[in-house]
Amino acid sequence: MSLALDPAAQDLLFREARTANTFTDEPVTEEQVQAIYDLVKFGPTSMNQSPLRITLVRSPEARERLVKHLSEGNQKKTAAAPLVAILSADNEFHEELPALFPHFPQAKDMFAGDRSVREKNAALNASLQAAYFIIGVRAAGLAAGPMTGLDFEGVRKEFLDEDHTPLMVVNIGRPGPDAWFPRSPRLSYEQVVTTV
Amino acid sequence: MSLALDPAAQDLLFREARTANTFTDEPVTEEQVQAIYDLVKFGPTSMNQSPLRITLVRSPEARERLVKHLSEGNQKKTAAAPLVAILSADNEFHEELPALFPHFPQAKDMFAGDRSVREKNAALNASLQAAYFIIGVRAAGLAAGPMTGLDFEGVRKEFLDEDHTPLMVVNIGRPGPDAWFPRSPRLSYEQVVTTV
Repeated sequence: MSLALDPAAQDLLFREARTANTFTDEPVTEEQVQAIYDLVKFGPTSMNQSPLRITLVRSPEARERLVKHLSEGNQKKTAAAPLVAILSADNEFHEELPALFPHFPQAKDMFAGDRSVREKNAALNASLQAAYFIIGVRAAGLAAGPMTGLDFEGVRKEFLDEDHTPLMVVNIGRPGPDAWFPRSPRLSYEQVVTTV
Repeated sequence: MSLALDPAAQDLLFREARTANTFTDEPVTEEQVQAIYDLVKFGPTSMNQSPLRITLVRSPEARERLVKHLSEGNQKKTAAAPLVAILSADNEFHEELPALFPHFPQAKDMFAGDRSVREKNAALNASLQAAYFIIGVRAAGLAAGPMTGLDFEGVRKEFLDEDHTPLMVVNIGRPGPDAWFPRSPRLSYEQVVTTV
């Protein structure tokens, strides 16, 4: 069974793409990040909520502040990655809905009341967008190293505010020597899919 | 700035792909779903947790049971879609970690104690995998119609169990006539990305 997507693209995005733990020194430019965003911004979210926010950690001083909130096993690779991004969910995403979902003017009010409803929507949809972003990094020919081994509250206090919930930190760059471990097994179709 | 990914693939997965609201009668086969899974199973998750579970709703009887838990605006399209999938998070994913993350035998025990930690990990990582699945549906040349307008607890009780949390329902098929609304606006790069 062949997919409509070109096999080279399947390899680039999924089959040969791997979570990188080492990177070359080649910088990741603003233009590359813009090209990634301009592609993945089209990925679908509930009511076009689009709650993902991206903090690019470029200055050495900011990098140092981030690294200290990572688990020990993640510190060295993030200190050495050409670019590091903090992905977060904007829990006040509803403020943008009049522009993002213009054909349904009540959308903003639907979410104005209950912060916990907003947090739940923001977490789901920003996570979808985080996956689109990882795919976009790979589409740019770069390797992504997404990490959740970190002090989330520490990262929030250091870089964000009460309205933003960090989801993950992503190292970005061209893979360096011994960039990855052997691929871990995946669940079989039968373990994941049931039919009713 | 051009990406490494072929422009036709960019169109197929992001730029021309749209959330479909109508579908043709062409069936979506088991082989197509298997090909989608065999591609997107490689998308990364924290510690290879892989908590996404997929329930394919194929029988007319099951379809009817699902439709009644959807918001009114979603019922007609789901009743008519060639295939409908319930995507859920397995909160007991840690049981599979000895197979999925074999080089770190303590992984299962790390998650054995606290259900709320498992739920948080399962929600994030199954959401990432839901996005990979949507991309995979598009890679198969099909349109996806992901929906969160539904009674989640009703769907859980009807099709799942206490250990599984539904994330969304996805209509799948070839787009039919007037399959989508005009594309809604997206946030600008400057609204989403900040640099520190």
